[in-house]
Order: sequence, then structure tokens, then C-alpha cells
Amino acid sequence: MINRQLLHPESIVVIGGSNNVHKPGGAIVRNIINGGYKGVLRIVNPKEDEVQGVKAFHDISELPPTDLAILVIPSHMCPETVDRLAEDKGVKAFIIISAGFGEETKEGAKLEQHILDTCERHGAALIGPNCIGLLNSWHHSVFTKPIPTLHEKGVDFISGSGATAVFILESAVTKGLPFNSVWSIGNGKQIGIEDVLQYMDENFDPEKDSHVKLLYIENVSNPDKLLFHASSLIRKGCRIAAIKAGSSESGSRAASSHTGAIASSDSAVEALFRKAGIVRCFSREELTTVGCIFTLPPLTGRNFAIVTHAGGPGVMLTDALSKGGLNVPKIEGPDADELKSLLFPGASVANPIDILATGTPEHLGIAIDYCENKFKDIDAIFVIFGTPGLVQLYEAYDVLHKKILECKKPIFPILPCLHTAGPEVAEFLKKGHVNFSDEVTLATALTQIMKTPKPASPEIELFGVDIPRIREIIAGIKEDGYIAPELVHQIFECAGIPMVPEMVSDSKGELTAFADKVGYPVVAKVVGPVHKSDVGGVALNIMSAEHLEMEFDRMMKIEGAKAIMVQKMIKGKELFIGAKYEPRFGHIVLCGLGGIFVEVLKDVSSGLAPLSYDEAYSMIRSLRAYKIIKGTRGQKGLNEQKYAEIIVRLSTLLRFTTEIKELDINPLLADEDNVTAVDARIRIEK
Amino acid sequence: MINRQLLHPESIVVIGGSNNVHKPGGAIVRNIINGGYKGVLRIVNPKEDEVQGVKAFHDISELPPTDLAILVIPSHMCPETVDRLAEDKGVKAFIIISAGFGEETKEGAKLEQHILDTCERHGAALIGPNCIGLLNSWHHSVFTKPIPTLHEKGVDFISGSGATAVFILESAVTKGLPFNSVWSIGNGKQIGIEDVLQYMDENFDPEKDSHVKLLYIENVSNPDKLLFHASSLIRKGCRIAAIKAGSSESGSRAASSHTGAIASSDSAVEALFRKAGIVRCFSREELTTVGCIFTLPPLTGRNFAIVTHAGGPGVMLTDALSKGGLNVPKIEGPDADELKSLLFPGASVANPIDILATGTPEHLGIAIDYCENKFKDIDAIFVIFGTPGLVQLYEAYDVLHKKILECKKPIFPILPCLHTAGPEVAEFLKKGHVNFSDEVTLATALTQIMKTPKPASPEIELFGVDIPRIREIIAGIKEDGYIAPELVHQIFECAGIPMVPEMVSDSKGELTAFADKVGYPVVAKVVGPVHKSDVGGVALNIMSAEHLEMEFDRMMKIEGAKAIMVQKMIKGKELFIGAKYEPRFGHIVLCGLGGIFVEVLKDVSSGLAPLSYDEAYSMIRSLRAYKIIKGTRGQKGLNEQKYAEIIVRLSTLLRFTTEIKELDINPLLADEDNVTAVDARIRIEK
Repeated sequence: MINRQLLHPESIVVIGGSNNVHKPGGAIVRNIINGGYKGVLRIVNPKEDEVQGVKAFHDISELPPTDLAILVIPSHMCPETVDRLAEDKGVKAFIIISAGFGEETKEGAKLEQHILDTCERHGAALIGPNCIGLLNSWHHSVFTKPIPTLHEKGVDFISGSGATAVFILESAVTKGLPFNSVWSIGNGKQIGIEDVLQYMDENFDPEKDSHVKLLYIENVSNPDKLLFHASSLIRKGCRIAAIKAGSSESGSRAASSHTGAIASSDSAVEALFRKAGIVRCFSREELTTVGCIFTLPPLTGRNFAIVTHAGGPGVMLTDALSKGGLNVPKIEGPDADELKSLLFPGASVANPIDILATGTPEHLGIAIDYCENKFKDIDAIFVIFGTPGLVQLYEAYDVLHKKILECKKPIFPILPCLHTAGPEVAEFLKKGHVNFSDEVTLATALTQIMKTPKPASPEIELFGVDIPRIREIIAGIKEDGYIAPELVHQIFECAGIPMVPEMVSDSKGELTAFADKVGYPVVAKVVGPVHKSDVGGVALNIMSAEHLEMEFDRMMKIEGAKAIMVQKMIKGKELFIGAKYEPRFGHIVLCGLGGIFVEVLKDVSSGLAPLSYDEAYSMIRSLRAYKIIKGTRGQKGLNEQKYAEIIVRLSTLLRFTTEIKELDINPLLADEDNVTAVDARIRIEK
Repeated sequence: MINRQLLHPESIVVIGGSNNVHKPGGAIVRNIINGGYKGVLRIVNPKEDEVQGVKAFHDISELPPTDLAILVIPSHMCPETVDRLAEDKGVKAFIIISAGFGEETKEGAKLEQHILDTCERHGAALIGPNCIGLLNSWHHSVFTKPIPTLHEKGVDFISGSGATAVFILESAVTKGLPFNSVWSIGNGKQIGIEDVLQYMDENFDPEKDSHVKLLYIENVSNPDKLLFHASSLIRKGCRIAAIKAGSSESGSRAASSHTGAIASSDSAVEALFRKAGIVRCFSREELTTVGCIFTLPPLTGRNFAIVTHAGGPGVMLTDALSKGGLNVPKIEGPDADELKSLLFPGASVANPIDILATGTPEHLGIAIDYCENKFKDIDAIFVIFGTPGLVQLYEAYDVLHKKILECKKPIFPILPCLHTAGPEVAEFLKKGHVNFSDEVTLATALTQIMKTPKPASPEIELFGVDIPRIREIIAGIKEDGYIAPELVHQIFECAGIPMVPEMVSDSKGELTAFADKVGYPVVAKVVGPVHKSDVGGVALNIMSAEHLEMEFDRMMKIEGAKAIMVQKMIKGKELFIGAKYEPRFGHIVLCGLGGIFVEVLKDVSSGLAPLSYDEAYSMIRSLRAYKIIKGTRGQKGLNEQKYAEIIVRLSTLLRFTTEIKELDINPLLADEDNVTAVDARIRIEK
């Protein structure tokens, strides 16, 4: 429970605050003092009378009531200290820096639990244990460096790892990225990443609050909560990017060994992020670059102008943007000619706009003005400006500074000369700007942002899905495992998913009667053995009752045969839909073309149930083989709308049947008019 | 022609050298002086008696004979100056900094040509015009900053753009990357990137010379030369990485507008780099990161240990390595347990080896020692070591320094705290090390290196390809365009590429006799119309002479029908081979599965003719759909060896027939035993 005492304490006590700034207890006091904390700072240290100029109490008993307590003492002393502070001193917020809790031993976990219980009983907030603290513009309660530039519209950064937070801040500082708050949740005993997001969402003030959130996540402990509040914040105008470390199998091993948390399956994370509209990043460099982009005005389109005084970086930037599906449109016409006439001979305005190495600050300003006012196609402007060391760049960067303030279109500064023009870049950053020193890193981050969809609609498409009846069927199933084909049929019928007509029976007469009714050709499959084709249990293209009878007799002799299924044989291209239940996340739904497309090419896309129509279409259209569904030269397409509908209906069904652990519809047969499930398997586990 | 006077001049004269270090003429004099040039430095400046402490001559006539002249005067004055210096003063090397030549105007191109003619006549070397100069450990003849750390085993860097070279050096300097030489070729009028490589190759001294070459290329002007010398250097133990800017269509536009050079098609560049074994990079950041990796001992395997004192970066690094197909193998067993016992409680040794935030320099040393000596599976070691600002890192980085010198396995230092531990990192770099501040950027660069093949064999597979006869056939063709099917047949026969038996004739009798001979079923196709199937000009599965006669009569009535082709009908999976002639590069050969694999999935791989068997196999195996060729569960594979053979034979044929501009074999039909070309088209242009 995040409260005022945590965010804006009138008084802070550091239990274990010391004079040794080479230890956390001293460093955190130094940071709070250097951060200009305007409330009352108190220290408890049995051995000192004064710590860094602040009076030190020798014992908690001497303390006046205090809002926030920061504990930097051995873990075994923490529970009692928290008890006394909460009970006697009215402390309503705790930041526990100390390590040696649940992340290390079972005894530590008990200490942690005791602290949590006390906090819950007293309605107190708890950050940590095992963290670097909390930093905002009011109080710098972290023991680490660097302290980034702070700005109320800067980034809110929430990290699942303290050390990683420090390294991310290092990467941010050189870019000039400003922060509004830094949260290191440590073991997250009470307040996890999701809880911080929830607080920000529920208390969001669009005027005052920062619109940019960066997350470093090692374990998604509450996927639903993350999804709900992240997408809610994004809908309110926020922009969120996150690293979820542990995306590979070996990476997950590392994450587990590090945090003691069980890593979530990566495809679930991927699907969750897409559903929420969170931009996924894979490195500190990428996260802070995306963060810097987020501090600029949002992009309204995909067309970029590049103003540069060096050709090469302009070309590399153009290449990287094109690779990411972004455009550097050719600029031509009278306005372009006019611009050219205002630059030095040899300058190029076709885009990249190359003002030449000798281009002046004035040229830079003019080129930006033309992009802002005259070139209507252009949505945003990159400016590449460095120096070979002949002149200082203060003037040029001042022009850039003014244009960034003036222009409506976002301007991305790419200032590569961190060495030769170090002081000029530093002054530019001091004015509140960010800098992208490598143009391709910037383009890659932009691509990552542009390909992240908007948050999906949170509403579930219920139309025509008979949930009560489905629940009844599931409830009636007594045994775990693959359920009977006729139950699959019933469930699909309730969900409005068309299946090819079929009958399962051990009576030859019943089956031939069924075949007569639906019409030949039919398919016969043995029921019982799992790998039917391996045992000769599948016969296609049966054209007559006689033929069917013969196959019936043959198949019933196969070991394990219980009955025969007869299906109407239909034609079409093979499609595939699969689903897998991921604990805590829910069902991951996969779609793609069947056969080699799934098995060899692994050309599938995934989403997290429940899925909206928009999501289903986006899944289908992101397939590499989408052109086949759409129809290529000379080949008719498949009914995409019906395919999407089945994906949506299935995902709705799954949302209400967490007992379904695995589901495959393979194949569905599709043509221009229809998409029909031919074979489906459902495995449940209660 | 690169000579001693250019590389190691006993005397240098700067024509236009000045006191104004804010202009190139002054800055280059400053750099030469600050670089501790040990030869004789002279200045020509009509207005000064002394320039930066060096006596200035007022006119060239006063100069003693000099080895190298650097011109920093207006372009129109250069030709005469070069004439006088070459003729009267025995100057044997020129660096022309001045711009305003062929890159700007036709008049400029003439000036440039005059200078080249003079240089050629006098056997003089010429760098530029329009460049930043040449920098090596003997003389710093560039006008730009930064000047990187110089080391005889550092990088040789050759750049097609001066400004970009400066920005690349900026990116290198922060990483500590040392240089042996920096070449900015400018307009490359005499000495281009390829020529520098040729010189390095032909004069390579494995003891003394640097083994690392980095290239920034805007235009591959001589692909054969680049291929020959780059692969030769790599075979001698060098490691080469390059950016070729202008890989996208818009990027090429930018490159053209910038350098006046026609950009090469990107797939040709890609194929050339792979053939040569050049690691392709796409950004300054990536190029300098690869350069840093190249300064470390070469990797002998793909198994990495990560020693870290922070969990998060270890996890992100593991993820990125796994994504690139590199391994972070689990470490366990008695040695691992022993290591664990030497670290603080809570440390993890499973790999990543997490020595904890509180881990000491001693722990770091121990963990590295175990990776070096005990864990036999490990090929290289990453060390992630930063600080939250409590202690200084001099001691830890000194341990790292010593271990890098001691250990045989490459150690990659990842020191992220450039801000908080700036001075410590700087001191570490001063000891001659490099630093990778972002672990994922490092992993991505490593991946790029590991996936670059070795240089291909330069020998052409001639066995069984009848070049003289093929030349005869080509010589006999009088008209440009698609050549007649029977000529395609003849050419393929000479190259030993099996084609399905076929006959083209306008005689019904001849065709039925042919069909009787090869056996039914056969296929009939109209000859004349280009899009045969669109006009009903293809009939499959013809089972009898009668049926064939009927189709003959029908097809001969199609507009444009000249004859009918009858082919034996064979079965198999469709494969595809295509080739395209790229001016200067030669033929790009493409291969893949036919049909949707080429058309929809664009699943093709490419190589540059002539191709070795190794290259052909590598092309086939890099297909996404390779499993289909190899054979998947229940499906037999195709004859990969014969497919490779056809690719090799075709590529040999193409090497001797530059008149062939386009060639398609689509489809080839393949099964376990045979691969046979069914339909092929060849377009020639003389």
C-alpha cells in the first residue's frame, strides 16, 4: 500500500545511518542530504552523536514520531525494529535496504513475513527488503549513485533489481534522460512492480504526473494486474517500455538463481506485452533509448527527415529506418529547391538533407524550419551534428535547443562527438534535452516502438459463446487427460466453432447410415490409439458404404481400437490454431497455416486470451505466410474473417476454462467461404 | 601506389599550414606536432614566417626536397602545386585535404584527373582529395579530433568518408579501442579502400602488422579486388569487419547524393562479404564493438562463462547470447561446489557466476581462475563489474587487468559505470584494455562475428564444365533477350546440369515419336508466348499419343505459337535456382524451394559466383525450409548433394558467361535420388 508517508514524508529516520559513505548506511544519508530533502531527517545510531551533521539518536525509544523509516541494519534486527517503529512511533512507511531475507534463506523468509505482517496490521507501506531504495524529487532515499537529473515530467522507473537499476541509470545519465522517480522493489514483499503501476494508474493526474514509465522485470508475479494497469495507463496517454530478463532458457536459469523467482515462459510475456501495449526492450541501452524517445512529443506518422552535416551517419540511419519499415521520403519540388539555394553549394536536400561538413548553425536552423513548416510529408526530424574539432558547437546546439522548443514536430538530436564536443553536449543536456549518440541504436529503438500495438480492448467477445453450458460440460469431466471427441464437438458447438460433421461409434450400421446422410466421400479414423496414422488408423476418400464397411472391419482390429470416427471429407487449405495454459498468465493462443508452416517453418503468431477481433486480425496478418491467406497471384484467398472469428471465440471459451491446459485444432480446412475445424484435441487438468 | 614516403615520410610539408587551429590548415599542423612527428616538418604559407613554432616558407620554390606533401589550399590551386612539388621537389606522396573536386563539379573532376596524372607520371602516392588525411604511429596527418590511442597491434581503419571516420573514432575512443592507422580515402582518386587492403595484403608481416581491419564503405568500386585481398588477409589470420552504408533503397539514394557514387545492390554486397569472410556491421557502435572483440584472443568455441556481481545484466547477456546461438552452459560438479564455498553465502555458480554485489576483488579473481583452469567446457569469460558508488573499483579492475594478461581464454570486460566509476574505467583503458559498457550490444556483435563464415575457397570447380563449348554457344547467339530452349539445353548439357528430356518441334510426328521413346506421361508446352499458362499453353499428364496430338493441334492455334515442347513428366518436390548479373560484382546465385517458398515466403539464400561446394551447402542449409530438403518426420529428404552440385556447376558456368544477365531454373524437381531441371530461362545481353 503506497501512501503519502512513503512518497512525501514530512520526516525520515535512517536506522543505521552512519558517517561512512562507503557503506549503504552512510551513503543513503549523504544522498538524502545532497538531494536537498526539506523535511526532518533523523538518524538512529547507537555509537554516534552526530552523523553527517545530523543529530543521531542512540535508540529508537528516543525518536519522535516519524513518517518514513529506512532500515540499513542486519536483517535479524529488522523485525523487532519495524515492530517498535510501527507501534510506538507511528511510522507508516518502511524502506528496508538490508539483505539476508527470503532471497537467501528460509529463516530470512520468516523475518520478511514478520515485517510484512506488522506493516499490514498498521497500514504501513513497505519497500524491500533487499533493495537500493526509492528516489523521487522530494527525497533521495537510495544509497547508490548515480543520481540522475530529476524532473517532474521525467521517467518513472521501477526495477526488480537494485544493481541493474544502477546500471540502467548509468546508461540513462549519459543520454540526459530525466527521471521523476526510481523504485527498486527488492524482494517486493508488499509492493511489487505491479503495485506501483496500480498506484500510478489509480492516482493518475494527467497534468502533474509523468507520462513515461520504464520497467525492469525479472519475474512477472501478477500478469493480470500488470496487463490491466499498464494498458490503462497507456490508454490515459502514458508510454511504457520494459525489459523482461530471462527470455531464453539459460537466461531463465540465471534469473531463478538470482531472484529465487520462477521465470515465466517467454512467449506468454511477449503476448502479454503486446496485449498491454508495452514496448519490449532487451538491453539497458535499448530501454534508456526508448525512454529518451518517450520524452519527446509522440510521433504522428512514419515519415522522417534527416538533417545532417555528415553523409555517412545519414545513410546508416536511413538504412536502419527502412529496415524497420519507417520512411525517409524523397524531398523535392520548389520548396526543396529554395532550401538548397540557401545552403552551401554541394549541399543535398533530397533527404537526407546534407548541409555539408562546413554547414553553419544558421544552415541547421533553416533546414529544420523547412522540415517543420514547408515539407508537409514529414512527421519528425533527425538532426545529426558533430564536429571534427575545428570549431566549438555551442552555437549550433543552441540553435538546436531553440528549434526543439519551437517546433511541433519531434526533433531527435544525434550528437555523436561525446569526446571532442563533450562540454557542448553536456551543456545541451543541461537545458533539459536528451541525446542519441548512435543513430542506428535510435532507429532500432524507434522501430521497436512503432511495431508495438495499442493496448487491446479489455472487453471479452461473448456473443454466441454459451459459457454456462461449457462450464457444465467441463464440470462433468471426471478424469484428467485428453477428452473424448464427442465432448470436443459439444464444447465447440457451444462456442460456435464450426466442425466438420462426424460420428464416433462402434456400430458399423450407425456409421454407414451417418455417411449416407452427410454424403460421400468420408474419412474414417480409429478411436483409441493416439498416433492414428502410424498404426494405419486413418483412411481418406472413402467413396461408398461398402468401402467404409471394409475399413471399419480392418481398423477395429488395430490394437487399442475402441470405435471408429467417420467424418465428412472436405477440401481446403490447412490452418492451425493451438492454445496452451501458462500458469498465472492464462492461455497463449497460437495461429498459423498448418503442416510444414507450423512444423518446419515455425510460422505461428501468438496472443493472450481473451482476444479481440483486432488482436486476432493482427495475429493472422503478422504471419510470414499471410499472403497465402490473403490470396496470391492466381490463387484465391481464405476466409480471413471466419478464421479470426474462430480465434476470438476459442479465446473466449478458454478464458472461462482454465482446466484446459492444451488445445489443438489441426487442421482447420479453409477456402474462400468457410473455415471448418476437422480435428481437435483438448487436454484438461483439474 | 602506397609507398614509404606516404607511410613513413622523413619530411612532410603542409602547403597552407597556418596558425589558425580552427581551420584544417592549422589543425593538421597541430596534430602532426602533438603527435610527436620525428621527421622534418615544413610549412608553406605566403603570409607567415613561422607557423606554430615551425619555420614557414613563403613559396614552394624555397622548399628543400620533401617526401610527403599535404595540401590544404583551394582546389583550383592544387594541380599546379602538385606539378611543381612532384617535378621540382621530388615529392613522392600527396595527401590532399582540400574539397571542391569531382565530388562537386565537372571542373573539379578535371582538376582531380590532372593531379592523378601527375602522380602516376612521377610514381607518387595520392590520398584524397576531399579527405581528413592519414594517421599512423609515425605521423598524425589528419586535421580532425579525436586522435585515438595508437598501438602497433591496434586497428587499421579505412574509411570512405572523413566525417564518418571522425564519428566512428568517437565511438571507438570511449571503448578504449586502440588504432594502428586511420585512412580516410576521400574521393579515392588513386588509392581506394581496395588498394589499401591490397597493400596490406601484399606486404603483410604477421609479426609486426596489425591483425584487425575495420572498413567504412560507401561504394564497393572494385568487388573482385576487395574479395581477393580481404579473404587473403583473413586467411593469413586477420579479422575484418565493415559497414557498407546504403543497404536500403532510400539509403542508397542518400549514399549517391553524398558521394556521387552509384551504390551497389545490397544482396551483392551481402554475398561478397560472406564469401570474403568479412563481418558485416550496420552501425558505428557495432563496428567499434566488433573491433574491440577483434583485439582479444580469437574464440575457440561457443561456450561462455559469465562472472558478474549483479544478476540482471548476467541474465540479459545470457538471453542475448542464447538468441544468437551461443551457449552459457550450466556449471556444476565438485569444482563448482568448491568455487561456491570460496564466495559469500548466497553466491551462485551455476553460470552466470554471481559473486554478489558485495563480492570482493579477490572473489572476482577466484571466479576467473576457476573458469580459466577448472571449467574445461568454458571457451571465454565475460566479467560484469560496476559499482553503486560505495567503493572505488581500482582494486577490482587491477585484478581484472592481471587476469586478462594471465589467462589464455579471452576475457570480455563489461564495465557499465562510466559515470560513477569513470576514473577507474579510464585507468583500466589506459592499461591497454577495451571495455564493453553494454552487455547486449557485445552479445549482438559477437553473434554477428560467429555467424560469419570463413573465406570461401578461391578455386573454381571446373570439373565437367565444358567452358570452350559454352563460349562457342554464347558467341553464336546474335540477339539479346531470352535464348531458345534448345540452347538452354545445350548449355546445361555442357555444364553437366541434368535436364528433363524434351523436344521442341512444330512437327506432330516428331513429337509423338519422341514421347513414345521417353515414355508417357509427358507434358506439352507452347513455344512462343512468354506467359504460357495464362494462354492455356501448358498441358500436364498426357498419357497417350492421341492425347498429345490433340493438345498439339489446340496449342498451335494459340497466338504467337511457334512450336510445341514435349517433356517427359517427372515427379518430385520443387526447387529453385536463380541468378542475376550485378555489374562489377558478377553473378548473384539464389537458391531455395520453389513455389510459395520463393514467391510468398521469400525463403532464398544467395551467394556470389563462382561458388565452392562448401558455399553451396551453406546456402542450402541456411534456408528456413532446409528441414524439408533434409527430410522431416515421415517424409524422405531430397538429394542435397546433387542440388549443391548443380548450384556449383551453374555458378562456374556463369563465371565464364557475363553475357548472361538473368537465369532461372524453376522448377527443378527433386527426390531422394535425383535433382532435375524442368524449366529454365536464360536472358543474355552482350
